[in-house]
Parts: sequence; C-alpha cells; structure tokens
Amino acid sequence: MTKFLLSLNLAVKESLVIALDEFSFIDTIKQSMYKQSSLLKGIGDDAAVIGSIEQELVISKDMFVENVHFAKHTMKSYDIGYKALAANLSDMAAMGAKPAYYLVAISIPNDWPISEVYSIFQGMRDLADKFEIDLIGGDTVSGKELVISITIIGYGQKDRIRYRSLAREGDIVFVTGTLGDSQAGLYILNTPGNYRDSSYFINRHQQPIPRVEFALELMRLSRFSLNDISDGIASEANEIAEASNVTLVLKEENIPVHLAFQQFDSELQYKWKLFGGEDFELIGTVPREDWGTVQSVADKMNVKVTPIGYVTQKQESGFVLLQNRQNTVQRLDKKGFNHLSR
Amino acid sequence: MTKFLLSLNLAVKESLVIALDEFSFIDTIKQSMYKQSSLLKGIGDDAAVIGSIEQELVISKDMFVENVHFAKHTMKSYDIGYKALAANLSDMAAMGAKPAYYLVAISIPNDWPISEVYSIFQGMRDLADKFEIDLIGGDTVSGKELVISITIIGYGQKDRIRYRSLAREGDIVFVTGTLGDSQAGLYILNTPGNYRDSSYFINRHQQPIPRVEFALELMRLSRFSLNDISDGIASEANEIAEASNVTLVLKEENIPVHLAFQQFDSELQYKWKLFGGEDFELIGTVPREDWGTVQSVADKMNVKVTPIGYVTQKQESGFVLLQNRQNTVQRLDKKGFNHLSR
Repeated sequence: MTKFLLSLNLAVKESLVIALDEFSFIDTIKQSMYKQSSLLKGIGDDAAVIGSIEQELVISKDMFVENVHFAKHTMKSYDIGYKALAANLSDMAAMGAKPAYYLVAISIPNDWPISEVYSIFQGMRDLADKFEIDLIGGDTVSGKELVISITIIGYGQKDRIRYRSLAREGDIVFVTGTLGDSQAGLYILNTPGNYRDSSYFINRHQQPIPRVEFALELMRLSRFSLNDISDGIASEANEIAEASNVTLVLKEENIPVHLAFQQFDSELQYKWKLFGGEDFELIGTVPREDWGTVQSVADKMNVKVTPIGYVTQKQESGFVLLQNRQNTVQRLDKKGFNHLSR
Repeated sequence: MTKFLLSLNLAVKESLVIALDEFSFIDTIKQSMYKQSSLLKGIGDDAAVIGSIEQELVISKDMFVENVHFAKHTMKSYDIGYKALAANLSDMAAMGAKPAYYLVAISIPNDWPISEVYSIFQGMRDLADKFEIDLIGGDTVSGKELVISITIIGYGQKDRIRYRSLAREGDIVFVTGTLGDSQAGLYILNTPGNYRDSSYFINRHQQPIPRVEFALELMRLSRFSLNDISDGIASEANEIAEASNVTLVLKEENIPVHLAFQQFDSELQYKWKLFGGEDFELIGTVPREDWGTVQSVADKMNVKVTPIGYVTQKQESGFVLLQNRQNTVQRLDKKGFNHLSR
C-alpha cells in the first residue's frame, strides 16, 4: 500500500492538492538519514524493516482527536505534534524502555493548511531528535477532523521491564516532578486573568517532558513498578494497585505541586493534582532499600522525586487510600473528582 | 497511559457511557489467550512487550476514515473491521513477511452503537484468527467520525524481504487473482440493477483475501520484487519501476479479470482493472528461470497467477508502459484514468 499519500476525498481543498502535488508530502517529512542502527528499511516500501537485536521490543499505540484531546485555540500545530509524541515517549518511560522508532497516521481536515500539517510533523521531529528516534512509516489521509495516531517502538531488557504488577508490600510510593501543572496551564489558556508563572504552567501543558532518561537511569534497580501520569495520579495509582493486588496509601500533603499552584482555587488544586493528568510525570513503587538509589539518580538527572506514600497488603477499603492532613483516610477511586466519596 | 478506555467528550451519548461502564470495553476485546509464543505482555500495561527472536521485524501502519475509505451503506461494521485488517495483512504479504501482531486505535462517533463497535473488532478478530495473529494493544477514543488505525507487525528473513526495489531487467511481471473486482463490487452496491455474479464482486469488495500464505510459500525464491495492489496496478507497477529504476511493460489484454467482468461498460472495466485498487492481490517481478516455481506454488496454494509483462531497462518514455491489442504502447501513470494521455 502506498503510504504517506493523501487518500483525498472529493471535497478536499484545491490548495491542499496543489501543495501535495508540488512538494510531495512524503519527501518533506521523510528523514534524510536514520539514527537507529538496527533499521534496515524506513519510509518507502509497504512496511518498515527492523533488524533483529537481542532485546525485548516494547510497543504502544495512541490516538488523539481534535477538540477531545487538544484544541487549536490552546495548542499550536507544533505543540500538537510535540505533545502527541511526548505522550507516546512517556509510555516508553513507564515501561523502562528505550524508545527507538515511531510511526504516524494522520487524518487531516480540508480546512487545515498544509503548512500547519508540516508544523505538526516538525513538533514531532524536534522531540524525536532529542531522543534520537526515527520516523519509519505511517499513513496520511483526509477526514473531517484532525486525528493523529502514533505507534512507538522501543527496546527493553527482559528482567528490567517496569510492569504495573511489580509493586510489593513495604515499597515506597514516589512521583517525579509536580502534579496538576498541565491542567493549570490549560485553565490559564482558557480563563483570561493575571497569573503567576503562567508561562511555566502553559509550557507544561503544551510541551510536557517525558521522563525517559530518568526511567532508563534506574535500570540498575532489579525490581520496581512504574506508570506514567497521563490520566491523573488517582487513576495511575489504582492501575498499579490492581495489577499488583496491593493497596497504595498516599499522603495528600506529600503530593508535590509547584510553588505557584496555591494561587488557584483549592477545589481546582485538589482536582488537578489528583485527577488532572497529562503531566507525563511518573509514579512508581520501589523497595525501601532502593530509595537512596532513586534519590541519587534523581539528583544526577536533575529530576525532582518525592516519596508520597507506601504499599501495604490489599485492604478491604480499596486499592488506593488517601490520607489527609487530619489523618482521615478515604478511598481514592480511578475516576474523577465527582466520584469520590468525600 | 491507560489504553482502551474511552476518552469521552462531554457530548458523548449516555448509552455509550453506560455500555462501557457495564461491560468494560477492554475485557470484551482482549484475547483470553495469545497465539504467538514470542509475546511477553499483551494488553494491560503502558505497552506490549515482544520477546527477542532472531528474525527481522516488519511493521506497517494504516488509517481508515469513514466516508473516505468506506461507507456504512456499502460495508457492515463487521466488514469494516475485517477489511481494515486485511489491508494491513496485505502489506505483510507484499513484504513476504509472516504477520504476528496488530494494534488498533479507533475513534468512535457518538452515533455508533457500542454493538457496532464490537462488530468491527469481531471482523478483525475472525480474520486475525485465520492468520493466527494477536491483538496486543491500542487506544479507543471518541470523535466526530469513525477512524481506525491499525499497526501490524510481522517477521521476515533478512535476505527474503520482498522490496519494491528488487525488480531486474528480464524479469517476468505477474499478478495474482483478477483485478477490478473490488471496484465492480462497490459499483454494484451503489448502482441498483441485475448483475451476474454480484455476490462474488460484493464479497471481493467487503472481505478481500490478503495473499499472505502465497507470498510466504515463495520464500524459496532468492530474489523477486513484490507489491500489493491496494491503489490499482498502475500505481503499484510504477512504485516497483521507480524503486528499481527499470521500466515495466504490461500487456493490457493479459491483465486478468473475472469472467463476468465484461458485463460492465468497457470504460469502467478499463478504469477498474488499472486504477481500481483494493483488490489486495499482488504484483511482482521474478527472474524467468523462477517462473515455473511461482506457477507450481500458485497451483499448490490454489491461487491464480498470470504473467502480464516483462521488465526492461528504464525507458525514456516512462516507468510503466501499457501495450494494447493493436500493439500501441502508451505510458501508464501512477495516477487515475484522467491523467492518462490516451
């Protein structure tokens, strides 16, 4: 099948057709050289071919839809591409895998100028270059709304894949960075006003940094569980607890937030830090004896890590328990704020 | 990132939410067991994990959009899923690769009942079962129109990958099956009337058979080029010729069509067989001395193969030349019927 040629519907805009005829879309987005040595064939045939190497292959696929996952008035085209790939890189981080390749399928509405489409790919490429990963295939079609699907492929070591099921009783629960920043950034973009550190929050929303290197640097640890915080810590902590059949006890006051986070309504703070998502930080559980290693790796990588709780045997009261400043313990469900029995 | 949970927008239909709450979409589409022995982790974490094996990995990704690639009035939900996966399997066939895994990202509009979404996945699963491939990941989101993106992964042998660039002067050009059937089927679906063999043509449009086993059975051949006919033989033949820097001379009268094909207007026949696409047959070029092997493999696999031309050194007059019954030769371009200088 011919890839990266638009399957144009009849209603497609003349300018888009002309632009694609003139510049050949594929040549513009195709890398002139590839960074990964295991690649045998990139873009240009019915499929890409990756040479066999003695490592496990870690593979993940996402889909992003305009006005569901992002909106044009809060995200530039460049950011849309950047963030879509960041979310996929974050999945690699969550597995402790080293990203190597990505494929992009995109459905483009007629009212998107071709220059904006290039910007999307440029946003992906700039982030890809940072992590030395190669675009090796995909598909470009036309549709009513912008839809991007990315497939990412990385390498992992068999006994160093960081499954959610690897949390054990006695583990320390930790998170990287600060939580709720992305939602705060989105709020600022949507709610005119004067905010402290607004560019910080907006940047965290538009160009989050996946914690790939940090997760790889923890390769020396033999066992720990890891999840990336794409859907909010409540959801991710529950996934670890369920997969490992344990209970995670989190201390609310220990959940790290940015200094300027307190300028927002306290209800919003609570909602964003627990259920906000899209910070693409990591939550993990490590044996107590390995906590020192995590801290020293974090120092070295200039990544903030915070212990926020511990793992205990599975409790009747729930998979994740949240302990507040008054030592009241409540169940923290996967779902949003409204579902909490506060 | 949590996969296979709907990222619901606010406008999403109540019934869809309820259906997904009650039945947990992921549990319904998740395989209870996996067929591929190299799989270490399927659906259920941030990514799937495939164990290292000593073969090349062949990977491809497509995207299909409702009313661009398929329409509800000509394709049942089951067929949409079936055909989307068939197109991807066809890419594996075109590389001479053995398909092993697939991932599915899908954007579902609010007006698609959840039962129809299950049918899409059932169509994929039934075809996947035939080829013993496993669904190992993906994403499910909501959007304005149905969009399906499939990533397929297969295994190949380094010196047995069937690149488009492997055509050589003196090769015989061949195709499998008959061409234009899919477009004839679509025409029948859209144009009420009495047609001979209508169910044959309709089935070829709705449930095409990718030629995976045939391509694998040709593993004994050391060198040949191969492409699948997804966009029409004109386009695919040009891709082989360009990639190999040769000219393909095709004899129009040798291009195989179904017996009942002649019931259609001759202009339509010409258009469908050359530019129709979606037959998912194969076009290849083999050394003359290997033609006997191709024929015997075809007999064994009960696949029709037809020699339709030969490969010659690159001609000034074009990459693909079409010779008609009157021995007039004309250039056959990649693009549609209208672009032909007849």
